[in-house]
Amino acid sequence: MADNITLSLTEVRELSDSILLKHGFSPEHTQSITDIIYACQLDDCHSHGLFRLFMCTESIRSGQVDGAALPTVIDSAPAVVKANANQGYSLLAFNAALPSFIEKAKTNGIAAMAINNCYHFSALWPEVERISAQGLAAIAMVPSHAWVAPAGGTRGTLGTNPLAFSWPRMGKHPFTFDFATSQFARGEIELYKRAGKPLPEGVAIDAQGNPTTDPQAALDGAMLTFGGYKGSALSIMIELLAGPLIDDLTSLESMAYAQGKPGAPYHGEIIIALDPLLLSGNKVASNDARAERLFADIIDQGARLPSQRRYAARAKNLKNGSVEIPRQLYEDLLKLK
Amino acid sequence: MADNITLSLTEVRELSDSILLKHGFSPEHTQSITDIIYACQLDDCHSHGLFRLFMCTESIRSGQVDGAALPTVIDSAPAVVKANANQGYSLLAFNAALPSFIEKAKTNGIAAMAINNCYHFSALWPEVERISAQGLAAIAMVPSHAWVAPAGGTRGTLGTNPLAFSWPRMGKHPFTFDFATSQFARGEIELYKRAGKPLPEGVAIDAQGNPTTDPQAALDGAMLTFGGYKGSALSIMIELLAGPLIDDLTSLESMAYAQGKPGAPYHGEIIIALDPLLLSGNKVASNDARAERLFADIIDQGARLPSQRRYAARAKNLKNGSVEIPRQLYEDLLKLK
Repeated sequence: MADNITLSLTEVRELSDSILLKHGFSPEHTQSITDIIYACQLDDCHSHGLFRLFMCTESIRSGQVDGAALPTVIDSAPAVVKANANQGYSLLAFNAALPSFIEKAKTNGIAAMAINNCYHFSALWPEVERISAQGLAAIAMVPSHAWVAPAGGTRGTLGTNPLAFSWPRMGKHPFTFDFATSQFARGEIELYKRAGKPLPEGVAIDAQGNPTTDPQAALDGAMLTFGGYKGSALSIMIELLAGPLIDDLTSLESMAYAQGKPGAPYHGEIIIALDPLLLSGNKVASNDARAERLFADIIDQGARLPSQRRYAARAKNLKNGSVEIPRQLYEDLLKLK
Repeated sequence: MADNITLSLTEVRELSDSILLKHGFSPEHTQSITDIIYACQLDDCHSHGLFRLFMCTESIRSGQVDGAALPTVIDSAPAVVKANANQGYSLLAFNAALPSFIEKAKTNGIAAMAINNCYHFSALWPEVERISAQGLAAIAMVPSHAWVAPAGGTRGTLGTNPLAFSWPRMGKHPFTFDFATSQFARGEIELYKRAGKPLPEGVAIDAQGNPTTDPQAALDGAMLTFGGYKGSALSIMIELLAGPLIDDLTSLESMAYAQGKPGAPYHGEIIIALDPLLLSGNKVASNDARAERLFADIIDQGARLPSQRRYAARAKNLKNGSVEIPRQLYEDLLKLK
């Protein structure tokens, strides 16, 4: 497309690195952030790729995130590792706790990682895929800011509360999904607003709690969860598991903590890993085949497994050694350098 | 209501016990089944109360479930307990593994229970509530039969795959939900058929994979998941975690195994317990207060927490010392005695 620009894969990394270092992130944080931004951009996940550098740098510019914070890893129980991000981004804390987490899951059959006191801007799928790459199934959850109304409610209480899951497949890309429990992402509503388009029904309510299709009224009001009262219940579960369970903030508390400042929200994250080897009684191969029959039956009827578009984009971009991003995005990013 | 009959709480137990013993269930299985049927009936969960005795007895009459099977509990990893139901109902296996499961969760911070080779007919909320009564958060998942199409699909592949969650609240009933990941329960479609009413849009497809509101066409075709592609992804996750992860059947395999016989499906179940004490770093009280502020904000805007109707019914029925059930149901149950 004419309004796109091609960046080599090296340029993606260099652009991200230079912006992050310029803004005061330590080399360690810079690398952990660039790794995840690169992974998303490689898969054409534009919303969580280079675009996220704006949110990422905003939080340090406004004096919120600590760009040099070193995480503290705490071995708090045989099957639990806690990583205190100490007001830094979550990613370095995740990296620091990952080896212990994997070992705990493979020793105990199941384990939990809790990240505390972190700023969070990143997609969850790269994290659960790093765990499934070790042969484990993984679930990750985070709250956000209280933009989403519970079913039957009139105002924002819940976060967009994403849920990510990854299942290891022998010799194949994992089965992975990563979705917001809000019907729409907040950024999608912004896009409708910019395009002057009405929202679909069932996505948002206005400040009075009435259904609305007006994007600005939705931004002033609240978003709705996906799937009605079931999605709402799931979102509350995520608040509890990624908040009070691990001694960290709910989306309401995270929003209050930010005091209206823009940038990434501050809260916790929980990740659960399950070991197919120990849980299946050492029958991984036959159960991998069983899962493949399930996937085959889904694909055979013309349905799509989640993340397939992402894997196709990755293959294409790796082959080309480059990605395409909007020229305007590139020019805006250069201003951050 | 004129077509209802009042049964004392003792009569509920006696009716269930006598029907189960008459059909050849051992005293141990009888007690574990009656306990759960009683718990559901006490909460006016009619679909999983005494009504379930039909499905329960059907499976033994058709020579499927073993009414005297003794479960085998296997300590398969430090944080995993597996319970082989040995072709019996799941409940006795759950009971047998529960003490070890609770201890493992409280020692390790998180634990998994896998029930294998079980017939399953019961609601999941009584199980997660027995765990939250011990101060733990709990998640339970089971597959069923392949009646539900994946998003974008044309035929049944997934089960109704319920997800249940319970969170312990200090001095209060827990926060609990238990919902099918299908848009409707199968029994609901039967009810629409009997009432000669069309289904709402988005609930089912016919045998050709086209949307239908005709209940019979839906029963011949497939149901849809709640929440579109997100609900579908969640349902696939449940297939994987409660099936291949624990070396047990998917809903497709369970349906094939039944060879068209009626009664309860045969498959596995997974339950995860998380310890707020270890995961919060011993800050249970302050985090209970944090969760309560979340619940208060939900209730304050007129939204309802899940299970509140159930708790109200329980209080009313306990006060009365009795429950009301349809007279026709009672008369049909007497024929099973």
